[in-house]
Amino acid sequence: MILSAGELAARIGAELHGDPSLPISGVATIDEAGQGHVTFLTNPSYRKYLASTGASAVIVAEHPDLPGKTWLVAKDPRAAFIEALHCFFPPIEGPAPGVHPTAVVAPGAKIASDATIGPLCVIEEGVEIGSGTFLRAQAFVGRNVVIGENCLIHSRVSIREGCRIGNRVTIQDGAVIGSDGFGFAPGQEGYATIPQVGIVVIEDNVDIGANTTIDRATLTRTVIRKGVKLDNLIQIAHNVEVGLGTVMAAQTGIAGSTKVGAHSMFGGQVGVAGHLKLEDALIVAAQSGVTSDPKSVERRDGVKIVGGSPARDIHHWRRIEASLSRLPELFKRVKKLEDKG
Amino acid sequence: MILSAGELAARIGAELHGDPSLPISGVATIDEAGQGHVTFLTNPSYRKYLASTGASAVIVAEHPDLPGKTWLVAKDPRAAFIEALHCFFPPIEGPAPGVHPTAVVAPGAKIASDATIGPLCVIEEGVEIGSGTFLRAQAFVGRNVVIGENCLIHSRVSIREGCRIGNRVTIQDGAVIGSDGFGFAPGQEGYATIPQVGIVVIEDNVDIGANTTIDRATLTRTVIRKGVKLDNLIQIAHNVEVGLGTVMAAQTGIAGSTKVGAHSMFGGQVGVAGHLKLEDALIVAAQSGVTSDPKSVERRDGVKIVGGSPARDIHHWRRIEASLSRLPELFKRVKKLEDKG
Amino acid sequence: MILSAGELAARIGAELHGDPSLPISGVATIDEAGQGHVTFLTNPSYRKYLASTGASAVIVAEHPDLPGKTWLVAKDPRAAFIEALHCFFPPIEGPAPGVHPTAVVAPGAKIASDATIGPLCVIEEGVEIGSGTFLRAQAFVGRNVVIGENCLIHSRVSIREGCRIGNRVTIQDGAVIGSDGFGFAPGQEGYATIPQVGIVVIEDNVDIGANTTIDRATLTRTVIRKGVKLDNLIQIAHNVEVGLGTVMAAQTGIAGSTKVGAHSMFGGQVGVAGHLKLEDALIVAAQSGVTSDPKSVERRDGVKIVGGSPARDIHHWRRIEASLSRLPELFKRVKKLEDKG
Repeated sequence: MILSAGELAARIGAELHGDPSLPISGVATIDEAGQGHVTFLTNPSYRKYLASTGASAVIVAEHPDLPGKTWLVAKDPRAAFIEALHCFFPPIEGPAPGVHPTAVVAPGAKIASDATIGPLCVIEEGVEIGSGTFLRAQAFVGRNVVIGENCLIHSRVSIREGCRIGNRVTIQDGAVIGSDGFGFAPGQEGYATIPQVGIVVIEDNVDIGANTTIDRATLTRTVIRKGVKLDNLIQIAHNVEVGLGTVMAAQTGIAGSTKVGAHSMFGGQVGVAGHLKLEDALIVAAQSGVTSDPKSVERRDGVKIVGGSPARDIHHWRRIEASLSRLPELFKRVKKLEDKG
Repeated sequence: MILSAGELAARIGAELHGDPSLPISGVATIDEAGQGHVTFLTNPSYRKYLASTGASAVIVAEHPDLPGKTWLVAKDPRAAFIEALHCFFPPIEGPAPGVHPTAVVAPGAKIASDATIGPLCVIEEGVEIGSGTFLRAQAFVGRNVVIGENCLIHSRVSIREGCRIGNRVTIQDGAVIGSDGFGFAPGQEGYATIPQVGIVVIEDNVDIGANTTIDRATLTRTVIRKGVKLDNLIQIAHNVEVGLGTVMAAQTGIAGSTKVGAHSMFGGQVGVAGHLKLEDALIVAAQSGVTSDPKSVERRDGVKIVGGSPARDIHHWRRIEASLSRLPELFKRVKKLEDKG
Repeated sequence: MILSAGELAARIGAELHGDPSLPISGVATIDEAGQGHVTFLTNPSYRKYLASTGASAVIVAEHPDLPGKTWLVAKDPRAAFIEALHCFFPPIEGPAPGVHPTAVVAPGAKIASDATIGPLCVIEEGVEIGSGTFLRAQAFVGRNVVIGENCLIHSRVSIREGCRIGNRVTIQDGAVIGSDGFGFAPGQEGYATIPQVGIVVIEDNVDIGANTTIDRATLTRTVIRKGVKLDNLIQIAHNVEVGLGTVMAAQTGIAGSTKVGAHSMFGGQVGVAGHLKLEDALIVAAQSGVTSDPKSVERRDGVKIVGGSPARDIHHWRRIEASLSRLPELFKRVKKLEDKG
């Protein structure tokens, strides 16, 4: 695919300084770009590459007054660059809408005529799949699942019986939606399994990472609200709710019945205890353990940041960490004081 | 499905106070229940909902002397409620026993006539599958695997060659049983792989979570004893043994050759070092790191509870945690003493 | 399969002391071995079993002058034992080279005539698969993927579009190679997804564990260098590079754009922050959190060892850990000093 620099500028909303007829055939990072490539500058520490990059065109925030390149000046170079990526890399599409002949689809499943069901998928009875949705290959969709429009379900995803997926949801390979929650009651002969008969509801514009697992509720709904982004290998237990637009990095786990607020950001490998109700706009540092709602933590610029296990105000935690480094020495100082006394 | 309150009371072993002919059509939580629903009260903090719940019937430990409801009085309301769930939500069943025509089954595999092999499963040679077992879809069962009776194997589970699964075992979607253990020996040209030729043995009544991985032993057996419950995304390394009735929460990992005792409970994201032999009835707090058998920890009410990384007596650990919060301040106090001296 | 002790000695490079015609039919651990088995002694604490083991032959470093056994004396008994394992357990092979009739292979995919594509695999257009490579079952191989020679891809592995796999690579069940990296930019209506159009490159002799996930780069390449060994449930984020011969234990996670050095060893459940450039020959203790390149840590015997979260020199960290145990007591000591003053 080739675009002229002029066309590209128009499509990404940038101002062109240079040759509008210049052919652009791809995108690359500033240190790896070559002839025909467009690149971008957002990180000031890469400014040194501006003169030497092999790129033919560069998306920048300000015209750098350097010769020999075509400049695409945009208010938000990152957003403009994302647009450029969309120009050169349209979303993956199936060969053509329709159901692959090797997919196993129960009679009565309602699949939109322009949805694509890839090879070796299993679609059980009562399923509904919306317009423009693409199941890539080998997905499992249990009975009575409803999937909305324009979703992209990558290979080998399982969506268990009764779960509901909104519109424009992307699920990476191997994720499991609606596995039975971990519910056991001590009985006379070991633990008795508590049937998990609720569902998972995933709202619009959610992204779910590879091999992430989201358990169905015991009775009601595990809910992933609009715009949530979950990375790989995350565990969401039964009856959890993850609030609007919240983002979680890989390998984080949320225990049962906890409500995570909206617009929050969780680092990787965070653990959150069960039955909590966390506030909105909470930032949790990687590897932290949240064991209570950090009510007493001061909000700065509208957000609360916590760290450590158990998680505390991040400023307090950073001071503790710094103190820890000097702890062995503190013992010596106290010994010295004792000896003197 | 509709049961009369009288029938339901009989099936869950409760005493009926109210209208035995009342039709009950489902179960719900006390704050979400409506007409025709049965709900339950076990958590005292939900007692406030007793008067206002929309449920037609409520399972309780004691008759609350409130009008307008039918009460099902049970000694153990939780157990009675689990029974009620079983009444309204019978276990998932395949369309009918038999092998789905799209499953790939090696000649000579012995599959009980009332077992169900779902679509697109792969069953290699020498496999034996017992009566009443249900492989839902897209499972992989390697050569010479033996699966017992009345197991429920959800979608996309892999059970590798030679492993043995007992009776009434449930495995959630995407779990891997019998992957090669992580065994490498430093050689002249990097690491040489140590062939992993042992198996995994899973005994009766075990539950295994979604995307959990259990490695085969190097030479012998990785063993999951009767009644063990493993949550999602857990890692069990080669040659590990998990003792009778032990329960582990999500994202916990047990390193190679460690023996975990019976009747233990591990929180989420726990790590246990290799080659340990842990005692029975050990409780490990979430996110802890167990690096040795906590022999010196005192047993209280029959159990040992440890926490922290490295894990210590939980009471000691809680005191350390509390001290940590005041550590930066302690430095100031010592400085003051030094200045005075 | 039966080998004479003499043949076995020749094949594993050991010196035979005993009956060269003795038939050997299998391998076992020293405490479990029986008649016809060969076992080995590398761990001195198992020396007590030498007299009592039921094994017919034992691989040892030195002839122990005990009667009744055939001894196979090898310089490196562990390496010799690995060779013995290879003799008795040849690698898993497909029924015969070729494409299983239930695999879905796009026209034009180039599959070596002696490669084996197992049942229910999906191979998209433009894929190339080299000589001797075996895809066991239900794998997904996206468009334009290139897989080298003599690879073993276990059941239900996904390799997404454009990724490149070297020679002699083993991937355990359920792993995902090339899932979209976690890239989102805050926009007017929540987060906008940054298209991930790079790939994953896996070099020769790499082993990847079950349900491990490796994200494709945003624009360029996520790279796993020669001889790397990754355990189960590991997360490698976009644009990461893992250096030559590095080994990582289960549930470790590496955040985006970090370069891990060569010949390093990471324990289980380690977390590494993004955008770091770590030195070679770095050893990271289990459950540590690496938040910066440990430049100031002293190298001993050629390696740096770090531990804790945030990770520090392991010796410093061990002293801090020891101090922590006495921290509550230190508060009392300081209080006493204050009271005295």
